[in-house]
Amino acid sequence: MTNALLNRPGQDDSRNPSMEQDRHQQLTARMAQLAETSAGTPMGQLLRKFWHPIALSRSVAPGKAREVRLLSEDLALYRGEGGSAHLLANRCAHRLTKLHTGWVQGDELRCMYHGWKYDARGQCVERPAERPGSHASIRVTAYPVHEYCGLIFAYLGEGEPPMFDLPRKPKFEEPGVMLFPRQEIWPCNWLQHAENSLDAVHVSFAHQMGKVGVFGDAITSDIPTLRYEETSAGIQQTAVRVSGGKSQVRVSDWTFPYGNHVAMPAVYEGGPWMESANWMVPIDDTHTLRVSLRAAPSTNPEADTKLQEYFDGCDDYCATDYHDELFAGNYPDDPLVRLTSAQDYVALIGQGAIADRVHERLGASDLGIAMLRRIIARELEAIRTGAPTKEWSRIERPSTLIQHTAEKATD
Amino acid sequence: MTNALLNRPGQDDSRNPSMEQDRHQQLTARMAQLAETSAGTPMGQLLRKFWHPIALSRSVAPGKAREVRLLSEDLALYRGEGGSAHLLANRCAHRLTKLHTGWVQGDELRCMYHGWKYDARGQCVERPAERPGSHASIRVTAYPVHEYCGLIFAYLGEGEPPMFDLPRKPKFEEPGVMLFPRQEIWPCNWLQHAENSLDAVHVSFAHQMGKVGVFGDAITSDIPTLRYEETSAGIQQTAVRVSGGKSQVRVSDWTFPYGNHVAMPAVYEGGPWMESANWMVPIDDTHTLRVSLRAAPSTNPEADTKLQEYFDGCDDYCATDYHDELFAGNYPDDPLVRLTSAQDYVALIGQGAIADRVHERLGASDLGIAMLRRIIARELEAIRTGAPTKEWSRIERPSTLIQHTAEKATD
Amino acid sequence: MTNALLNRPGQDDSRNPSMEQDRHQQLTARMAQLAETSAGTPMGQLLRKFWHPIALSRSVAPGKAREVRLLSEDLALYRGEGGSAHLLANRCAHRLTKLHTGWVQGDELRCMYHGWKYDARGQCVERPAERPGSHASIRVTAYPVHEYCGLIFAYLGEGEPPMFDLPRKPKFEEPGVMLFPRQEIWPCNWLQHAENSLDAVHVSFAHQMGKVGVFGDAITSDIPTLRYEETSAGIQQTAVRVSGGKSQVRVSDWTFPYGNHVAMPAVYEGGPWMESANWMVPIDDTHTLRVSLRAAPSTNPEADTKLQEYFDGCDDYCATDYHDELFAGNYPDDPLVRLTSAQDYVALIGQGAIADRVHERLGASDLGIAMLRRIIARELEAIRTGAPTKEWSRIERPSTLIQHTAEKATD
Repeated sequence: MTNALLNRPGQDDSRNPSMEQDRHQQLTARMAQLAETSAGTPMGQLLRKFWHPIALSRSVAPGKAREVRLLSEDLALYRGEGGSAHLLANRCAHRLTKLHTGWVQGDELRCMYHGWKYDARGQCVERPAERPGSHASIRVTAYPVHEYCGLIFAYLGEGEPPMFDLPRKPKFEEPGVMLFPRQEIWPCNWLQHAENSLDAVHVSFAHQMGKVGVFGDAITSDIPTLRYEETSAGIQQTAVRVSGGKSQVRVSDWTFPYGNHVAMPAVYEGGPWMESANWMVPIDDTHTLRVSLRAAPSTNPEADTKLQEYFDGCDDYCATDYHDELFAGNYPDDPLVRLTSAQDYVALIGQGAIADRVHERLGASDLGIAMLRRIIARELEAIRTGAPTKEWSRIERPSTLIQHTAEKATD
Repeated sequence: MTNALLNRPGQDDSRNPSMEQDRHQQLTARMAQLAETSAGTPMGQLLRKFWHPIALSRSVAPGKAREVRLLSEDLALYRGEGGSAHLLANRCAHRLTKLHTGWVQGDELRCMYHGWKYDARGQCVERPAERPGSHASIRVTAYPVHEYCGLIFAYLGEGEPPMFDLPRKPKFEEPGVMLFPRQEIWPCNWLQHAENSLDAVHVSFAHQMGKVGVFGDAITSDIPTLRYEETSAGIQQTAVRVSGGKSQVRVSDWTFPYGNHVAMPAVYEGGPWMESANWMVPIDDTHTLRVSLRAAPSTNPEADTKLQEYFDGCDDYCATDYHDELFAGNYPDDPLVRLTSAQDYVALIGQGAIADRVHERLGASDLGIAMLRRIIARELEAIRTGAPTKEWSRIERPSTLIQHTAEKATD
Repeated sequence: MTNALLNRPGQDDSRNPSMEQDRHQQLTARMAQLAETSAGTPMGQLLRKFWHPIALSRSVAPGKAREVRLLSEDLALYRGEGGSAHLLANRCAHRLTKLHTGWVQGDELRCMYHGWKYDARGQCVERPAERPGSHASIRVTAYPVHEYCGLIFAYLGEGEPPMFDLPRKPKFEEPGVMLFPRQEIWPCNWLQHAENSLDAVHVSFAHQMGKVGVFGDAITSDIPTLRYEETSAGIQQTAVRVSGGKSQVRVSDWTFPYGNHVAMPAVYEGGPWMESANWMVPIDDTHTLRVSLRAAPSTNPEADTKLQEYFDGCDDYCATDYHDELFAGNYPDDPLVRLTSAQDYVALIGQGAIADRVHERLGASDLGIAMLRRIIARELEAIRTGAPTKEWSRIERPSTLIQHTAEKATD
């Protein structure tokens, strides 16, 4: 069980070729299952137990509708004329055309094809050309949504959604804080994003790319020592870096199944550090919505404007649009958001649309990934046997802590 | 039989789960069959019994060749140096390269690869590098074509084609009439176009889209009452609309399998009404050639020029080129051709490349669609059993009639 | 056996429908096998016994890496800081991201994701975040490369590569010769390129396309008489053309599996004839890298500059970029390189991504193709039975000879 989603051979298997072959087939099947997102699959069921960010609040104005895709489902996201966001399965029950192309009336959405109208619970409330009252038996699926800090979250699971708790962070809710939400869509499975966010070593390499040349060797002396622990919310990562005799301890709280929370250096010299949350949302098996929320304390009008302008400038950047350039080694000239994004893009898309976990070779530095896979294996086993899955709950203390000490960290 | 292509459950089935499952599988298979177009399929056989418009006459100049695709077959359409159009299967018998890339000589087409030459009946008449006389045994398939009102029609069936009759309309043949043929190619199956053309209710909604906002509700009071009857040519639709105490009766003759004929309001205030025919030609299972022919009486030089300029301006418009914009709700600013096209595009492409007829939910307003499906089911059954299919014949009287009366239509 | 890869019916088969059906299935399977390129396939094994050009030397600068694809394998081609080219399988052993996106250090390549470093033999020499010494057991596949005349060749087979001999030509190695390497990538299987290069008749037609109109008929009188013989290097083709009472004998040595060597007319009036080699390299089953190397004797500075400028101007041309234009009959205005390329493109891509060899109809003029297929069938049979395949060796004499005589060639 411990090794269920790691590709380490068992003790005895390698002696027996046919057992080895069986093991390989089982491993391949288990790894393939990890990338699934749709409703009928075990991972799809597990992922449906969480709130997912699906769009920036500003992407849908009052009285407007748009399409979003989450967990392989096409959805009509619309905002009532009064401003509330609603989410319906995106096919009219009549001729199955897309509901988001229709028009919003009050808090209801009318299909553009024949005018069937649905309320925010998915109940059909009008079928213009049919027998009066005949709408009562007709409905489309509706899903709960929750807006938070400029993001719209949705819950696609069965029954009552969990309290909206896990994605929250105290820093985002402080008075006067500046919030910078953004998103990109990348053509690969969400899990390699999630694994990447539990992989502190890649920072020393991938995030030097496009900058380094002959300096490559110097980096290798600055690899952190890593420790991972399962928490009530997910996984806590402690990374200790030693540089110039000083040690730096960085504690990050990572939220299951894919929420990364880190402290981020200032964009400008002398600017404030930021709190940064990243969600790697499964659009479908081969597309991920990367949503980021950054929070910075408001300082003075000039600095605030500078910061706002910086993030406004990054708004339209999506690494996917620069695929060929990035794979040819041409990185954007940017101090933070675009460059970091581009570097992760090359690393993750370079793994393929769905990373090959059968032929990979994890090492000691992949402890975070190993822990994530063990948790997933445990939760999938619970789903398989009908046992309850873990009830995750948010960690109250600040998610990220930076400590500088004069002592050398233990190796 | 009546319900064969409608997804209504039988009386008893719902009580028995395994019968229900069987019924679902059979329904799925029958519905999938409806979208097929290639020669080996029942629908492909049925569709091959008709003349189909395949290109605008002006799209192929004398001495030139181009490729067209019809019923999943790639075809070389060429015009002899004398002006006659000819149609061959588009692969040379030798190395199977595309014939349309070769050159026209007289009424013959020579392959660009090794110069094998074919006449308009598909007979090879020259094999330059081979034994003299050896061409006699070689031929490619040739198909009859017929030009009419600026359109080239083709017949892909076995044996002698039917008389060129069904697509004709007296209005198109009147002296001094102005004719405006045009075409678009859309990425979806032809049948959802055909069903849309027998669906009068969508006019009240889809064709308001991009214009309406708060006025949406007003539309619902103006739904027509509909009646459908099978005719010698296809289906006659009678739509009665009541507005301001007056009733308007609109009779349209629709031609099997996909020909829509309607009267169309003038493009400009005070201009003449037009006769409009629309054909939704199956390119293959997931592409449709929408061909329109509009006819307007010539009035005075100024008005004629205005009309000609309007249609010239629409010539290049194809809704497919504006897919993303249209699905984001940005419609073209145009009084008629482009806007109507864009609205139907969003409705039909929104159903998917092949509409899901298993999960749809037809209503009383879908009587025209139900009748079309019953006719198709009957004709497919004839093909299955080897019985003769219906011999369709054109209706002589004007296809469309508009009547304004002071009486209220019955509901 | 002789007819194994030709679609000629056997003597008796046509009398027996079920034998005919069996024969058709076997033919289809054999023909499908011909287009395969990956390691596990018979053709993939055969193709792996040869050196293949994979890139222009100038496409990878010292200290840089890029991706190439050969025989369905993705490869990292990099040049050490000292200038030597190296080739590795393009996935890091760790998390399988693309190695070519990393950075070159000396003659080693470091992965951009976690810094694992590989030497030119594929041996991992550093795993920064892992236990010191743990790199020893880790390696990726490395392949031998050889640079020649501005091209980088690779060998992907098992064991020691054959001597780098078959692709060489004395003319390319003469002092003072000007060399013009170039490449295009086309979306079709390599074998139809190879067959085309053994097809002298197509020159009389395909290479007139875009130029001819009413002159088409005149060409047919100028078809060469052809003779093919297997040599130590591949196939020798003798083409005799008669024109205006004079005969022209052209002898070309073609190198197995796809190397075409011909003498080429001067680009400019009065310029020197050139030696031209063309390789049709299998990128994968449906893509081909067409590599050309032309050699011209240096004459005088002015003429040399003119020639260099001509080839520089052709550098970026790839017919694939002009697909729609070419298939609509719009050819580039160019005396040689671009036009020839465009004409072959239309002929070969017109056959489809993989030419249909089941329904083709070879003639007497396809003797070269028939010989190539017989050789391939023989070599595949050797591979199937474990017998040694032919050891090919280069022909020393100039590959191409042009003779003008006053006598009429025999027909």
